[in-house]
Amino acid sequence: MNRVDFKKIKGLAFDAYGTLYDVHSVIQLGERLFPGQGTALSNAWRLKQLQYTWQRSLMDRYADFWKVTEDGLVFAANSLNLKLDEGKRKQLMEAYLSLKTFPEVPAGLRELSGAGYKLVILSNGAPRMLQEVTKNAGIEQYLAHIISIDEVKIYKPSPRTYQLASKKLGIAPEAIGFVSSNSWDIAGATSFGLTTLWINRGNQPPDELGYPSHRVVTKLTDLLPLLKGLV
Amino acid sequence: MNRVDFKKIKGLAFDAYGTLYDVHSVIQLGERLFPGQGTALSNAWRLKQLQYTWQRSLMDRYADFWKVTEDGLVFAANSLNLKLDEGKRKQLMEAYLSLKTFPEVPAGLRELSGAGYKLVILSNGAPRMLQEVTKNAGIEQYLAHIISIDEVKIYKPSPRTYQLASKKLGIAPEAIGFVSSNSWDIAGATSFGLTTLWINRGNQPPDELGYPSHRVVTKLTDLLPLLKGLV
Repeated sequence: MNRVDFKKIKGLAFDAYGTLYDVHSVIQLGERLFPGQGTALSNAWRLKQLQYTWQRSLMDRYADFWKVTEDGLVFAANSLNLKLDEGKRKQLMEAYLSLKTFPEVPAGLRELSGAGYKLVILSNGAPRMLQEVTKNAGIEQYLAHIISIDEVKIYKPSPRTYQLASKKLGIAPEAIGFVSSNSWDIAGATSFGLTTLWINRGNQPPDELGYPSHRVVTKLTDLLPLLKGLV
Repeated sequence: MNRVDFKKIKGLAFDAYGTLYDVHSVIQLGERLFPGQGTALSNAWRLKQLQYTWQRSLMDRYADFWKVTEDGLVFAANSLNLKLDEGKRKQLMEAYLSLKTFPEVPAGLRELSGAGYKLVILSNGAPRMLQEVTKNAGIEQYLAHIISIDEVKIYKPSPRTYQLASKKLGIAPEAIGFVSSNSWDIAGATSFGLTTLWINRGNQPPDELGYPSHRVVTKLTDLLPLLKGLV
Protein backbone atom coordinates (compact mmCIF):
# COMPACT_ATOMS: atom_id res chain seq x y z
CA MET A 1 0.00 0.00 0.00
CA ASN A 2 1.33 3.44 -0.96
CA ARG A 3 1.93 6.11 1.69
CA VAL A 4 -0.41 8.98 1.03
CA ASP A 5 -1.35 12.15 2.87
CA PHE A 6 -5.14 11.98 2.78
CA LYS A 7 -5.44 15.56 4.04
CA LYS A 8 -4.82 16.74 0.46
CA ILE A 9 -8.19 15.28 -0.60
CA LYS A 10 -10.74 17.97 -1.51
CA GLY A 11 -13.45 16.00 -3.26
CA LEU A 12 -14.71 12.44 -3.39
CA ALA A 13 -15.98 10.50 -6.38
CA PHE A 14 -18.05 7.41 -5.65
CA ASP A 15 -18.70 4.46 -7.86
CA ALA A 16 -22.43 3.66 -7.78
CA TYR A 17 -23.28 0.01 -8.47
CA GLY A 18 -21.79 -2.33 -5.90
CA THR A 19 -20.38 0.61 -3.91
CA LEU A 20 -23.35 2.82 -2.94
CA TYR A 21 -26.08 0.54 -4.31
CA ASP A 22 -26.31 -3.16 -3.68
CA VAL A 23 -26.87 -4.74 -7.10
CA HIS A 24 -27.76 -8.00 -5.46
CA SER A 25 -30.81 -6.39 -3.91
CA VAL A 26 -32.55 -7.72 -7.03
CA ILE A 27 -32.11 -11.24 -5.64
CA GLN A 28 -35.42 -11.08 -3.77
CA LEU A 29 -37.39 -10.20 -6.89
CA GLY A 30 -35.48 -12.79 -8.93
CA GLU A 31 -36.30 -15.37 -6.30
CA ARG A 32 -40.00 -14.49 -6.42
CA LEU A 33 -40.08 -14.72 -10.22
CA PHE A 34 -37.85 -17.83 -10.45
CA PRO A 35 -38.02 -19.72 -7.15
CA GLY A 36 -34.68 -21.21 -6.12
CA GLN A 37 -32.79 -19.28 -8.84
CA GLY A 38 -32.64 -15.74 -7.47
CA THR A 39 -28.98 -15.81 -6.43
CA ALA A 40 -27.76 -17.67 -9.52
CA LEU A 41 -29.63 -15.22 -11.77
CA SER A 42 -28.29 -12.18 -9.94
CA ASN A 43 -24.68 -13.44 -10.08
CA ALA A 44 -24.81 -14.41 -13.75
CA TRP A 45 -26.54 -11.13 -14.63
CA ARG A 46 -23.95 -8.94 -12.88
CA LEU A 47 -21.05 -10.90 -14.39
CA LYS A 48 -22.30 -10.53 -17.97
CA GLN A 49 -23.36 -6.93 -17.51
CA LEU A 50 -19.76 -6.04 -16.65
CA GLN A 51 -18.23 -8.23 -19.34
CA TYR A 52 -20.40 -6.57 -21.96
CA THR A 53 -19.19 -3.11 -20.86
CA TRP A 54 -15.56 -4.18 -21.38
CA GLN A 55 -16.17 -6.11 -24.58
CA ARG A 56 -18.29 -3.42 -26.24
CA SER A 57 -15.73 -0.78 -25.27
CA LEU A 58 -12.96 -2.79 -26.91
CA MET A 59 -15.12 -3.50 -29.96
CA ASP A 60 -15.78 0.25 -30.37
CA ARG A 61 -19.49 -0.59 -30.14
CA TYR A 62 -20.66 1.42 -27.18
CA ALA A 63 -24.24 0.96 -26.02
CA ASP A 64 -25.48 2.58 -22.84
CA PHE A 65 -25.69 0.82 -19.49
CA TRP A 66 -29.46 0.29 -19.70
CA LYS A 67 -28.91 -1.69 -22.91
CA VAL A 68 -25.95 -3.78 -21.66
CA THR A 69 -27.79 -4.43 -18.41
CA GLU A 70 -30.79 -5.74 -20.30
CA ASP A 71 -28.55 -7.77 -22.63
CA GLY A 72 -26.80 -9.25 -19.58
CA LEU A 73 -30.15 -10.20 -18.09
CA VAL A 74 -31.27 -11.93 -21.30
CA PHE A 75 -28.03 -13.94 -21.47
CA ALA A 76 -28.15 -14.82 -17.76
CA ALA A 77 -31.73 -16.10 -18.03
CA ASN A 78 -30.87 -18.11 -21.18
CA SER A 79 -27.79 -19.63 -19.54
CA LEU A 80 -29.94 -20.83 -16.61
CA ASN A 81 -32.80 -21.99 -18.85
CA LEU A 82 -35.23 -19.53 -17.29
CA LYS A 83 -38.14 -18.30 -19.36
CA LEU A 84 -37.83 -14.53 -19.25
CA ASP A 85 -41.07 -13.16 -20.71
CA GLU A 86 -41.65 -9.47 -21.44
CA GLY A 87 -43.28 -8.88 -18.05
CA LYS A 88 -40.53 -10.47 -15.99
CA ARG A 89 -37.82 -8.74 -17.95
CA LYS A 90 -39.48 -5.40 -17.37
CA GLN A 91 -39.89 -6.03 -13.65
CA LEU A 92 -36.25 -7.02 -13.20
CA MET A 93 -35.00 -4.03 -15.21
CA GLU A 94 -37.19 -1.63 -13.23
CA ALA A 95 -35.69 -3.07 -10.04
CA TYR A 96 -32.42 -1.48 -11.18
CA LEU A 97 -34.03 1.92 -10.67
CA SER A 98 -34.80 1.29 -7.03
CA LEU A 99 -31.74 -0.61 -5.78
CA LYS A 100 -31.16 -0.32 -2.06
CA THR A 101 -28.05 1.41 -0.74
CA PHE A 102 -25.75 -0.53 1.58
CA PRO A 103 -26.92 0.21 5.15
CA GLU A 104 -24.23 2.72 6.19
CA VAL A 105 -24.24 4.72 2.93
CA PRO A 106 -26.69 7.57 3.77
CA ALA A 107 -24.96 8.27 7.10
CA GLY A 108 -21.52 8.11 5.48
CA LEU A 109 -22.43 10.58 2.73
CA ARG A 110 -24.09 12.94 5.23
CA GLU A 111 -20.96 13.05 7.42
CA LEU A 112 -18.61 13.64 4.48
CA SER A 113 -20.80 16.28 2.94
CA GLY A 114 -21.19 17.98 6.32
CA ALA A 115 -17.40 18.03 6.70
CA GLY A 116 -17.14 20.12 3.52
CA TYR A 117 -16.05 17.55 0.93
CA LYS A 118 -17.52 17.93 -2.53
CA LEU A 119 -19.14 14.61 -3.43
CA VAL A 120 -19.97 13.18 -6.86
CA ILE A 121 -21.00 9.88 -8.35
CA LEU A 122 -18.82 8.59 -11.21
CA SER A 123 -20.55 5.59 -12.72
CA ASN A 124 -21.03 3.40 -15.76
CA GLY A 125 -24.79 3.92 -15.37
CA ALA A 126 -26.85 5.70 -17.99
CA PRO A 127 -27.83 9.23 -16.83
CA ARG A 128 -31.53 8.40 -16.36
CA MET A 129 -30.72 5.24 -14.38
CA LEU A 130 -28.39 7.12 -12.04
CA GLN A 131 -30.82 9.98 -11.49
CA GLU A 132 -33.71 7.67 -10.68
CA VAL A 133 -31.87 5.29 -8.39
CA THR A 134 -30.28 8.20 -6.51
CA LYS A 135 -33.60 9.95 -6.07
CA ASN A 136 -35.33 6.75 -4.98
CA ALA A 137 -32.57 6.09 -2.44
CA GLY A 138 -32.97 9.59 -1.00
CA ILE A 139 -29.28 10.56 -1.19
CA GLU A 140 -29.33 13.17 -3.96
CA GLN A 141 -28.98 16.11 -1.54
CA TYR A 142 -25.40 15.06 -0.71
CA LEU A 143 -24.18 15.02 -4.31
CA ALA A 144 -22.80 17.96 -6.29
CA HIS A 145 -22.85 16.04 -9.58
CA ILE A 146 -23.97 12.69 -10.91
CA ILE A 147 -21.44 11.88 -13.61
CA SER A 148 -22.10 9.19 -16.19
CA ILE A 149 -19.41 7.76 -18.45
CA ASP A 150 -22.07 8.09 -21.17
CA GLU A 151 -20.43 11.48 -21.81
CA VAL A 152 -17.33 9.77 -23.21
CA LYS A 153 -19.01 6.62 -24.62
CA ILE A 154 -16.48 4.21 -23.20
CA TYR A 155 -16.68 2.26 -19.95
CA LYS A 156 -14.46 1.98 -16.91
CA PRO A 157 -11.58 1.27 -16.47
CA SER A 158 -10.67 3.53 -19.44
CA PRO A 159 -8.67 6.56 -18.23
CA ARG A 160 -11.13 8.80 -20.11
CA THR A 161 -13.82 7.90 -17.59
CA TYR A 162 -11.77 8.87 -14.51
CA GLN A 163 -10.73 12.10 -16.23
CA LEU A 164 -14.39 13.14 -16.06
CA ALA A 165 -14.27 13.35 -12.25
CA SER A 166 -11.34 15.76 -12.30
CA LYS A 167 -12.96 17.88 -15.00
CA LYS A 168 -16.37 18.14 -13.30
CA LEU A 169 -14.97 18.75 -9.81
CA GLY A 170 -12.32 21.18 -11.04
CA ILE A 171 -9.85 19.42 -8.76
CA ALA A 172 -6.49 17.84 -9.67
CA PRO A 173 -6.64 14.02 -9.92
CA GLU A 174 -4.48 13.30 -6.86
CA ALA A 175 -6.68 15.57 -4.68
CA ILE A 176 -9.73 13.46 -5.56
CA GLY A 177 -10.50 10.44 -3.42
CA PHE A 178 -12.05 7.77 -5.63
CA VAL A 179 -14.18 5.32 -3.69
CA SER A 180 -15.22 1.95 -5.12
CA SER A 181 -15.96 -1.57 -3.97
CA ASN A 182 -14.83 -2.97 -7.30
CA SER A 183 -11.15 -3.78 -7.15
CA TRP A 184 -10.67 -3.53 -10.93
CA ASP A 185 -12.29 -0.06 -10.84
CA ILE A 186 -9.81 0.98 -8.17
CA ALA A 187 -6.97 -0.29 -10.37
CA GLY A 188 -8.20 1.83 -13.27
CA ALA A 189 -8.50 4.94 -11.09
CA THR A 190 -5.07 4.43 -9.50
CA SER A 191 -3.54 3.91 -12.94
CA PHE A 192 -5.12 7.19 -14.11
CA GLY A 193 -3.83 9.11 -11.09
CA LEU A 194 -6.73 9.46 -8.64
CA THR A 195 -6.17 8.74 -4.95
CA THR A 196 -8.06 5.54 -4.29
CA LEU A 197 -10.00 4.07 -1.38
CA TRP A 198 -11.19 0.51 -1.79
CA ILE A 199 -14.30 -0.44 0.16
CA ASN A 200 -13.76 -4.14 0.64
CA ARG A 201 -16.95 -5.21 2.39
CA GLY A 202 -16.54 -8.93 1.72
CA ASN A 203 -12.86 -9.42 2.60
CA GLN A 204 -11.99 -10.21 -1.02
CA PRO A 205 -8.44 -10.47 -2.38
CA PRO A 206 -7.43 -7.50 -4.56
CA ASP A 207 -7.33 -7.85 -8.33
CA GLU A 208 -3.85 -8.47 -9.72
CA LEU A 209 -3.75 -5.57 -12.14
CA GLY A 210 -0.62 -3.84 -10.87
CA TYR A 211 -2.31 -0.67 -9.53
CA PRO A 212 -3.39 -1.28 -5.92
CA SER A 213 -5.56 1.07 -3.88
CA HIS A 214 -3.96 3.67 -1.63
CA ARG A 215 -6.05 2.42 1.29
CA VAL A 216 -8.58 -0.30 2.06
CA VAL A 217 -11.60 0.23 4.34
CA THR A 218 -14.63 -1.93 5.04
CA LYS A 219 -17.40 0.67 4.98
CA LEU A 220 -18.24 4.20 3.89
CA THR A 221 -18.29 5.52 7.46
CA ASP A 222 -14.59 4.60 7.79
CA LEU A 223 -13.70 7.36 5.34
CA LEU A 224 -14.08 10.56 7.37
CA PRO A 225 -11.67 9.62 10.20
CA LEU A 226 -9.19 8.47 7.55
CA LEU A 227 -9.41 11.71 5.56
CA LYS A 228 -9.05 13.80 8.72
CA GLY A 229 -5.84 11.95 9.53
CA LEU A 230 -7.32 10.49 12.72
CA VAL A 231 -6.47 6.90 11.85
CA MET B 1 -28.19 -16.03 -38.46
CA ASN B 2 -26.99 -14.24 -41.59
CA ARG B 3 -27.12 -15.92 -45.00
CA VAL B 4 -23.60 -16.32 -46.27
CA ASP B 5 -21.99 -18.09 -49.19
CA PHE B 6 -19.22 -20.03 -47.49
CA LYS B 7 -17.62 -20.90 -50.83
CA LYS B 8 -15.99 -17.46 -50.84
CA ILE B 9 -13.82 -18.50 -47.85
CA LYS B 10 -10.13 -18.83 -48.77
CA GLY B 11 -8.44 -18.98 -45.39
CA LEU B 12 -9.34 -19.86 -41.82
CA ALA B 13 -8.19 -18.19 -38.61
CA PHE B 14 -8.59 -20.19 -35.42
CA ASP B 15 -8.78 -18.93 -31.90
CA ALA B 16 -6.45 -21.05 -29.73
CA TYR B 17 -7.47 -21.25 -26.07
CA GLY B 18 -10.87 -22.85 -25.61
CA THR B 19 -11.16 -23.51 -29.36
CA LEU B 20 -8.19 -25.69 -30.34
CA TYR B 21 -6.80 -26.18 -26.82
CA ASP B 22 -8.87 -27.18 -23.83
CA VAL B 23 -7.88 -24.74 -21.08
CA HIS B 24 -9.62 -26.90 -18.53
CA SER B 25 -7.15 -29.67 -19.18
CA VAL B 26 -5.27 -28.07 -16.25
CA ILE B 27 -8.06 -29.35 -13.96
CA GLN B 28 -6.26 -32.65 -13.39
CA LEU B 29 -3.06 -31.00 -12.25
CA GLY B 30 -5.01 -28.51 -10.14
CA GLU B 31 -6.85 -31.39 -8.54
CA ARG B 32 -3.60 -33.16 -7.73
CA LEU B 33 -2.08 -30.02 -6.18
CA PHE B 34 -5.28 -28.93 -4.39
CA PRO B 35 -7.53 -31.98 -3.87
CA GLY B 36 -11.22 -31.21 -4.34
CA GLN B 37 -10.49 -27.74 -5.78
CA GLY B 38 -9.29 -28.49 -9.33
CA THR B 39 -12.46 -27.44 -11.12
CA ALA B 40 -13.08 -24.36 -8.98
CA LEU B 41 -9.49 -23.23 -9.49
CA SER B 42 -9.62 -23.80 -13.24
CA ASN B 43 -12.89 -21.87 -13.60
CA ALA B 44 -11.81 -18.93 -11.45
CA TRP B 45 -8.45 -18.79 -13.20
CA ARG B 46 -9.91 -18.70 -16.72
CA LEU B 47 -12.49 -16.07 -15.74
CA LYS B 48 -9.90 -13.70 -14.27
CA GLN B 49 -7.39 -14.30 -17.04
CA LEU B 50 -9.95 -13.05 -19.57
CA GLN B 51 -11.16 -10.18 -17.41
CA TYR B 52 -7.59 -8.96 -17.01
CA THR B 53 -7.10 -8.92 -20.80
CA TRP B 54 -10.15 -6.66 -21.19
CA GLN B 55 -9.41 -4.46 -18.20
CA ARG B 56 -5.73 -3.94 -19.03
CA SER B 57 -6.62 -3.16 -22.64
CA LEU B 58 -9.09 -0.50 -21.50
CA MET B 59 -6.61 0.88 -18.95
CA ASP B 60 -3.97 1.21 -21.71
CA ARG B 61 -1.75 -1.01 -19.56
CA TYR B 62 -1.01 -3.96 -21.81
CA ALA B 63 0.93 -6.86 -20.36
CA ASP B 64 1.41 -10.06 -22.33
CA PHE B 65 -0.74 -13.17 -21.92
CA TRP B 66 1.85 -15.02 -19.86
CA LYS B 67 1.72 -12.21 -17.30
CA VAL B 68 -2.10 -11.89 -17.19
CA THR B 69 -2.41 -15.67 -17.02
CA GLU B 70 -0.09 -15.79 -14.02
CA ASP B 71 -1.88 -12.81 -12.42
CA GLY B 72 -5.21 -14.58 -12.95
CA LEU B 73 -3.84 -17.71 -11.29
CA VAL B 74 -2.62 -15.77 -8.26
CA PHE B 75 -6.02 -14.09 -7.85
CA ALA B 76 -7.92 -17.36 -8.33
CA ALA B 77 -5.82 -19.14 -5.70
CA ASN B 78 -6.23 -16.21 -3.27
CA SER B 79 -10.00 -16.10 -3.81
CA LEU B 80 -10.23 -19.81 -2.95
CA ASN B 81 -7.81 -19.54 -0.01
CA LEU B 82 -5.34 -21.93 -1.64
CA LYS B 83 -1.67 -21.62 -0.76
CA LEU B 84 0.05 -21.20 -4.09
CA ASP B 85 3.76 -21.54 -3.42
CA GLU B 86 6.46 -20.92 -6.03
CA GLY B 87 6.60 -24.57 -7.05
CA LYS B 88 2.86 -25.00 -7.55
CA ARG B 89 2.57 -21.75 -9.44
CA LYS B 90 5.34 -22.80 -11.78
CA GLN B 91 3.79 -26.23 -12.36
CA LEU B 92 0.38 -24.77 -13.19
CA MET B 93 1.84 -22.14 -15.51
CA GLU B 94 3.94 -24.75 -17.32
CA ALA B 95 0.76 -26.77 -17.85
CA TYR B 96 -0.37 -23.93 -20.12
CA LEU B 97 2.42 -24.90 -22.50
CA SER B 98 1.17 -28.43 -22.93
CA LEU B 99 -2.62 -28.06 -23.01
CA LYS B 100 -4.43 -30.84 -24.79
CA THR B 101 -6.35 -30.16 -28.00
CA PHE B 102 -10.02 -31.08 -28.11
CA PRO B 103 -10.21 -34.65 -29.50
CA GLU B 104 -11.32 -33.86 -33.08
CA VAL B 105 -8.92 -30.95 -33.62
CA PRO B 106 -5.94 -32.68 -35.31
CA ALA B 107 -8.22 -34.51 -37.77
CA GLY B 108 -10.19 -31.33 -38.48
CA LEU B 109 -7.09 -29.29 -39.23
CA ARG B 110 -5.63 -32.04 -41.41
CA GLU B 111 -8.79 -32.22 -43.54
CA LEU B 112 -9.02 -28.44 -43.98
CA SER B 113 -5.36 -28.07 -44.78
CA GLY B 114 -5.56 -30.97 -47.22
CA ALA B 115 -8.51 -29.28 -48.95
CA GLY B 116 -6.28 -26.26 -49.70
CA TYR B 117 -7.40 -23.74 -47.08
CA LYS B 118 -4.68 -21.56 -45.60
CA LEU B 119 -4.88 -21.98 -41.82
CA VAL B 120 -3.61 -19.65 -39.10
CA ILE B 121 -3.99 -19.24 -35.36
CA LEU B 122 -5.11 -15.80 -34.17
CA SER B 123 -4.80 -15.71 -30.41
CA ASN B 124 -4.36 -13.60 -27.30
CA GLY B 125 -1.46 -15.87 -26.35
CA ALA B 126 2.09 -14.59 -26.09
CA PRO B 127 4.22 -15.76 -29.06
CA ARG B 128 6.33 -18.19 -27.01
CA MET B 129 3.24 -19.73 -25.38
CA LEU B 130 1.56 -20.29 -28.73
CA GLN B 131 4.64 -21.78 -30.34
CA GLU B 132 5.24 -24.21 -27.49
CA VAL B 133 1.67 -25.37 -27.03
CA THR B 134 1.28 -25.85 -30.79
CA LYS B 135 4.48 -27.81 -31.06
CA ASN B 136 3.62 -29.95 -28.03
CA ALA B 137 0.20 -30.70 -29.49
CA GLY B 138 1.75 -31.79 -32.79
CA ILE B 139 -0.41 -29.59 -35.04
CA GLU B 140 2.16 -27.04 -36.26
CA GLN B 141 2.45 -28.63 -39.70
CA TYR B 142 -1.10 -27.53 -40.57
CA LEU B 143 -0.55 -23.85 -39.78
CA ALA B 144 0.79 -21.18 -42.17
CA HIS B 145 1.16 -18.61 -39.36
CA ILE B 146 0.75 -18.40 -35.62
CA ILE B 147 -0.45 -14.85 -35.05
CA SER B 148 -0.32 -13.27 -31.60
CA ILE B 149 -2.15 -10.06 -30.70
CA ASP B 150 1.11 -9.16 -28.95
CA GLU B 151 1.94 -7.43 -32.25
CA VAL B 152 -0.69 -4.78 -31.59
CA LYS B 153 -0.52 -4.77 -27.76
CA ILE B 154 -4.27 -4.84 -27.27
CA TYR B 155 -6.49 -7.86 -26.67
CA LYS B 156 -9.53 -9.28 -28.41
CA PRO B 157 -12.23 -8.19 -29.14
CA SER B 158 -10.49 -5.00 -30.37
CA PRO B 159 -10.87 -4.67 -34.17
CA ARG B 160 -7.09 -4.18 -34.40
CA THR B 161 -6.60 -7.83 -33.43
CA TYR B 162 -8.87 -9.25 -36.15
CA GLN B 163 -7.22 -6.95 -38.69
CA LEU B 164 -4.01 -8.94 -38.15
CA ALA B 165 -5.55 -12.06 -39.69
CA SER B 166 -6.43 -10.26 -42.90
CA LYS B 167 -3.02 -8.63 -43.08
CA LYS B 168 -1.03 -11.84 -42.49
CA LEU B 169 -3.17 -13.98 -44.79
CA GLY B 170 -3.36 -11.31 -47.49
CA ILE B 171 -7.06 -12.11 -47.82
CA ALA B 172 -10.02 -9.70 -47.55
CA PRO B 173 -11.82 -9.93 -44.18
CA GLU B 174 -15.05 -11.42 -45.52
CA ALA B 175 -13.11 -14.22 -47.29
CA ILE B 176 -11.61 -15.30 -43.97
CA GLY B 177 -13.51 -17.77 -41.86
CA PHE B 178 -12.87 -16.99 -38.21
CA VAL B 179 -13.38 -19.98 -35.92
CA SER B 180 -13.80 -19.62 -32.16
CA SER B 181 -15.59 -21.32 -29.30
CA ASN B 182 -15.80 -18.03 -27.43
CA SER B 183 -19.04 -16.29 -28.31
CA TRP B 184 -17.72 -12.82 -27.40
CA ASP B 185 -14.69 -13.44 -29.67
CA ILE B 186 -17.08 -14.29 -32.51
CA ALA B 187 -18.98 -11.04 -31.83
CA GLY B 188 -15.74 -9.04 -32.10
CA ALA B 189 -14.77 -10.76 -35.36
CA THR B 190 -18.24 -10.33 -36.89
CA SER B 191 -18.24 -6.67 -35.88
CA PHE B 192 -14.86 -6.22 -37.59
CA GLY B 193 -16.02 -7.91 -40.78
CA LEU B 194 -14.69 -11.48 -40.75
CA THR B 195 -17.01 -14.37 -41.66
CA THR B 196 -17.56 -16.21 -38.40
CA LEU B 197 -18.08 -19.82 -37.40
CA TRP B 198 -18.92 -20.43 -33.76
CA ILE B 199 -17.92 -23.82 -32.36
CA ASN B 200 -20.48 -24.27 -29.63
CA ARG B 201 -19.39 -27.53 -28.02
CA GLY B 202 -21.39 -27.09 -24.83
CA ASN B 203 -24.75 -25.93 -26.24
CA GLN B 204 -24.33 -22.49 -24.66
CA PRO B 205 -26.55 -19.48 -25.43
CA PRO B 206 -24.83 -16.84 -27.60
CA ASP B 207 -23.55 -13.65 -26.02
CA GLU B 208 -25.89 -10.69 -26.44
CA LEU B 209 -23.45 -8.32 -28.07
CA GLY B 210 -25.36 -7.58 -31.25
CA TYR B 211 -22.97 -9.32 -33.70
CA PRO B 212 -23.97 -12.98 -34.02
CA SER B 213 -21.95 -15.64 -35.81
CA HIS B 214 -22.67 -16.45 -39.44
CA ARG B 215 -23.00 -20.13 -38.54
CA VAL B 216 -22.86 -22.37 -35.49
CA VAL B 217 -21.28 -25.85 -35.48
CA THR B 218 -20.45 -28.24 -32.68
CA LYS B 219 -16.99 -29.42 -33.70
CA LEU B 220 -14.06 -28.62 -35.96
CA THR B 221 -14.78 -31.54 -38.28
CA ASP B 222 -18.14 -29.96 -39.15
CA LEU B 223 -16.34 -27.16 -40.98
CA LEU B 224 -15.19 -28.76 -44.23
CA PRO B 225 -18.64 -29.95 -45.40
CA LEU B 226 -20.02 -26.53 -44.55
CA LEU B 227 -17.34 -24.66 -46.48
CA LYS B 228 -17.77 -26.95 -49.49
CA GLY B 229 -21.47 -26.11 -49.52
CA LEU B 230 -22.45 -29.70 -48.80
CA VAL B 231 -24.62 -28.84 -45.80
